[in-house]
Amino acid sequence: MQIKAIKHIMQDNDKIAAQVRETLKAAGTLGVNLISSPGSGKTTLLEKTITALNERGKRCAVIVGDLETARDAERLDKMAAESIQINTGLSCHLYANQIAAALENLDLNTIDYLFIENVGNMVCPGEFDLGENVKTILYSFPEGDDKVAKYPTIFRVADIVLLTKMDIKQVCEFDMDRVMTDIRKLNGTAPVVPVSSKTGENFDQWLNWLLEQPAQHIGRQAGFVKE
Amino acid sequence: MQIKAIKHIMQDNDKIAAQVRETLKAAGTLGVNLISSPGSGKTTLLEKTITALNERGKRCAVIVGDLETARDAERLDKMAAESIQINTGLSCHLYANQIAAALENLDLNTIDYLFIENVGNMVCPGEFDLGENVKTILYSFPEGDDKVAKYPTIFRVADIVLLTKMDIKQVCEFDMDRVMTDIRKLNGTAPVVPVSSKTGENFDQWLNWLLEQPAQHIGRQAGFVKE
Repeated sequence: MQIKAIKHIMQDNDKIAAQVRETLKAAGTLGVNLISSPGSGKTTLLEKTITALNERGKRCAVIVGDLETARDAERLDKMAAESIQINTGLSCHLYANQIAAALENLDLNTIDYLFIENVGNMVCPGEFDLGENVKTILYSFPEGDDKVAKYPTIFRVADIVLLTKMDIKQVCEFDMDRVMTDIRKLNGTAPVVPVSSKTGENFDQWLNWLLEQPAQHIGRQAGFVKE
Repeated sequence: MQIKAIKHIMQDNDKIAAQVRETLKAAGTLGVNLISSPGSGKTTLLEKTITALNERGKRCAVIVGDLETARDAERLDKMAAESIQINTGLSCHLYANQIAAALENLDLNTIDYLFIENVGNMVCPGEFDLGENVKTILYSFPEGDDKVAKYPTIFRVADIVLLTKMDIKQVCEFDMDRVMTDIRKLNGTAPVVPVSSKTGENFDQWLNWLLEQPAQHIGRQAGFVKE
């Protein structure tokens, strides 16, 4: 009963996710799903990222998932062209149908990047396709160096891993070799980039990666600017 | 369909949780469920807590939930009288039936405290009763001061909130007044204690609280030692 219901939910979700992906492609918008534990710095990273993309002539929209409050969407509304907050109530992740509903309220034809900030959770957001093109995993230094093997779901599906809060790395116990070894067992290709949203260290690596993705995923050239 | 299945799962879980609670009471064992985001320091806190309780003549068992690996149970096996690792696979929280199954492999008559280290997740572990007597919520300073209102589930059900990693508080942006205001909107009574497992700061407040709980929840005197 339980297993059957879960299968049913997953299949429905995948169907809607495929439709979302088609909608994004038709509009020429890259969908980026940000996944991490609560407090790894998703919203702060997005504030800096969207500001930097704006400076490069890109227009960004955000969809933010939280159980309650509109705090994160309010923060991001300052720099994003459009922002939508989804309150999930008791759910620990976003579903594709929530993204599909949000897209009805966004004019994608003016948007280059759609960032989806998932509910803070290192497990379920890795299991639910939202129709995004790439998954960005954040993992902060103060969380410690033993999380990859214990929470493998999100590292398996990562397109890029950002090691955040690099600015307080020196006060954290974090063995980089251990983390890299654990990630490479699960994921052979995703770049792993330590960054600080506070100091901007290595931020260019993340931005350059983001600028390359549209050409790869939705057939647009890097540096393409919509009219 | 989905809602019906979820209701069914929750009702079954609550029934089994009630049985677990009866078993614990009959054995005179206090069940403590530890809930937090990944990387908030549950395992390190338990290492220090169990060592300190051992010094006071208490015997402790642990049940540890992780998606994969037995790393945490191996760490805690050094100081706990008994330890059991549960691998949840894709599930982001423990269920009561997993605790019931684990209890069959524990001799509770020699155990004063059963610590249950839940899967690191700020959402679902707050929704699933495991049959514990008290819920301890960990929330670390580097996670930032905006999490309470965004992840209210676990703060609503908290019996005590430990603000962990107090030793690196000075490098974190964390407005204690904001956090206390947010917690008190959800929970009027749970003590909120900043602690450091590293330096031991305020650890006595947590231990004293723990020592008072058996009398309140399972009818044992504080300081009671089993034979």
